[in-house]
Amino acid sequence: MVGIIGGGQLARMCAPVAVNLDITLSVLCETPESAAGLVVPSAPVGDYTDVDTVLEFARDCDVITFDHEHVPQDVLHALVATGVPVHPSPEALVFAQNKLAMRERLTSMAIPCPAWASVSTAEQLAAFGAEHGWPVVLKTPTGGYDGKGVLLVSSPQEAADWLAHGEPLLAEEAVDFLRELAVLVARSPSGQAAAWPVVHTVQTDGICTEVLAPAPQLVPDLAARATEAALRIAGDLGVTGVMAMEIFELPEGGFVVNELAMRPHNSGHWTMDGSVTSQFEQHLRAVLDLPLGSPRPREQWTVMTNVLGGQDEDLYPTYRHLMARDPELKIHLYGKAVRPGRKIGHVNLTGTDLADLRERGRHAADYLEGTVRE
Amino acid sequence: MVGIIGGGQLARMCAPVAVNLDITLSVLCETPESAAGLVVPSAPVGDYTDVDTVLEFARDCDVITFDHEHVPQDVLHALVATGVPVHPSPEALVFAQNKLAMRERLTSMAIPCPAWASVSTAEQLAAFGAEHGWPVVLKTPTGGYDGKGVLLVSSPQEAADWLAHGEPLLAEEAVDFLRELAVLVARSPSGQAAAWPVVHTVQTDGICTEVLAPAPQLVPDLAARATEAALRIAGDLGVTGVMAMEIFELPEGGFVVNELAMRPHNSGHWTMDGSVTSQFEQHLRAVLDLPLGSPRPREQWTVMTNVLGGQDEDLYPTYRHLMARDPELKIHLYGKAVRPGRKIGHVNLTGTDLADLRERGRHAADYLEGTVRE
Repeated sequence: MVGIIGGGQLARMCAPVAVNLDITLSVLCETPESAAGLVVPSAPVGDYTDVDTVLEFARDCDVITFDHEHVPQDVLHALVATGVPVHPSPEALVFAQNKLAMRERLTSMAIPCPAWASVSTAEQLAAFGAEHGWPVVLKTPTGGYDGKGVLLVSSPQEAADWLAHGEPLLAEEAVDFLRELAVLVARSPSGQAAAWPVVHTVQTDGICTEVLAPAPQLVPDLAARATEAALRIAGDLGVTGVMAMEIFELPEGGFVVNELAMRPHNSGHWTMDGSVTSQFEQHLRAVLDLPLGSPRPREQWTVMTNVLGGQDEDLYPTYRHLMARDPELKIHLYGKAVRPGRKIGHVNLTGTDLADLRERGRHAADYLEGTVRE
Repeated sequence: MVGIIGGGQLARMCAPVAVNLDITLSVLCETPESAAGLVVPSAPVGDYTDVDTVLEFARDCDVITFDHEHVPQDVLHALVATGVPVHPSPEALVFAQNKLAMRERLTSMAIPCPAWASVSTAEQLAAFGAEHGWPVVLKTPTGGYDGKGVLLVSSPQEAADWLAHGEPLLAEEAVDFLRELAVLVARSPSGQAAAWPVVHTVQTDGICTEVLAPAPQLVPDLAARATEAALRIAGDLGVTGVMAMEIFELPEGGFVVNELAMRPHNSGHWTMDGSVTSQFEQHLRAVLDLPLGSPRPREQWTVMTNVLGGQDEDLYPTYRHLMARDPELKIHLYGKAVRPGRKIGHVNLTGTDLADLRERGRHAADYLEGTVRE
């Protein structure tokens, strides 16, 4: 039995592949309405920051993995102490939990990063801005996602509220980039690793809205170097399971790493319909130390478009319309209550005409959100 | 909520697609260990031949469909009387439940069938054999599957036990055929229909062991005529959901219909990895009267190989080995206790080299069964 801590959509999307492989899941959910809890028979509700709750949950599990990276280190270490395999390990996970630790480690590995510094005072921030130029990207080292915990500042004054807390912040140069790419890899405890093709993650307001797989017109050398970097990071950090490395492609060539995530990732949702092995199947195989599956794409292009909530709470009539309009559309809904702007699902399309796939994906997402009505 | 009567592997394989489409399932299971009951949160246990049990089960369902065709007609009619949509309807299902009714109906539609007759006595059987030649295929009109309920007899004497019951039997000529093919279609209550490519179902001892999709070197005219026949049958009989038509390809050209099934079917398991829309997704879409999805194959060839149980009860070490040997292998296990000869899963492989896919699929199935050990 694989125990997943966190009942969000990532845990939910592990359920279908677990059925096929006859792997039993148990999911520790935040609420009875958690996305994964609705579809997995064993879905206890509990607080993942509480050691006793987590240890109790883990008692019947052969391995523990995660829907998110927010389980505190002390809880993780208590888990490991019980002898249950935990993948990824707390030692690896810290680099996805703490962006300062991540920058330090990647820099020591000579992985290209934006210029960065740990800043706790206005003076330190001013010095960083003077050296690397304004605006500066400020990040809280822990807890951020989807653009939250990130502030673009043009002066130390604009960061006054954040600096007032006295905690170290991560300051990064605002990189001038061509586009954002992501490299998704998986690594098992035995050390086997596999990588999907590098994808283009199209961002709007700091949120990934669309993924093009593979990234169009990507220089093969850049793809190779980025993939090598991701595999090296996964190996050196001892990552187990799926790991996503988000990067910026630079105008002068090359790349710098933006973020790391150690779990199935939005940039990999295309694999559910576009690859022989989906990221969710690969994650389960990896954390169970089963041999990894082929990441080969099944078709020339796959386009994944995120679906955000709009005003309509009942999506059924909407997706009925879309199914009639486009029989090739693969709709994935997370079972979450619709709230404006909340990620509630995604759609995948595969084929040979990239522009056409993108247009159809965009239409379907907009239609589900309610911003287009035909 | 879609209610499925019967907790076998066909109901089980509906669960993954229900997750993606955010459709809630409830499955009336034979036992707490039923294949589907292990993976669906709502899985009451009850007797599908008991009217009260079935009506109670159906109370919260928006539509009722089936894992198998064995629900008695009186139970089906009691269900319909409550107003809940039942797909396929009892009026359609009778032609999958009763082979005599099926032969009569197809013959009246001028669908090609083997020569057949209803026989209750040795004299009638002798007359049929004299006209159409021996051996004669005898079938119990109801209850047969996977070669059960079928007897090949060379004289009325060999059928003495069966004839002793006094019930009418279906006598059919033993057709001399080139190969067995299957046509899988889906039809919704609104009348929309879709067909997958015609496949070759390779049979061993009356059990389908392998499916080649699409059927290699099939004459396009035969494919078109067989598909047209299946769609016409689905339409005329008012079939809703997935329907499989098994046919014999004749040496002189053309085909005759062997069997009809009104549910997802073993001959369609290749669609889980080989088609844009799997038969399980299509069945759910059809019974909910949602628009049907594209049956387009994703790759040139898909080979499905059935996995039978062997001596090993624990498949995990076995499939671990196979995953290492063949990263492209898609393993589907049904969560059933292993018994020698029992269908416990299947494997799918997709690609461009048919002979290679077949060899790899055969090896994987044999290895899981334990008949090869390398």
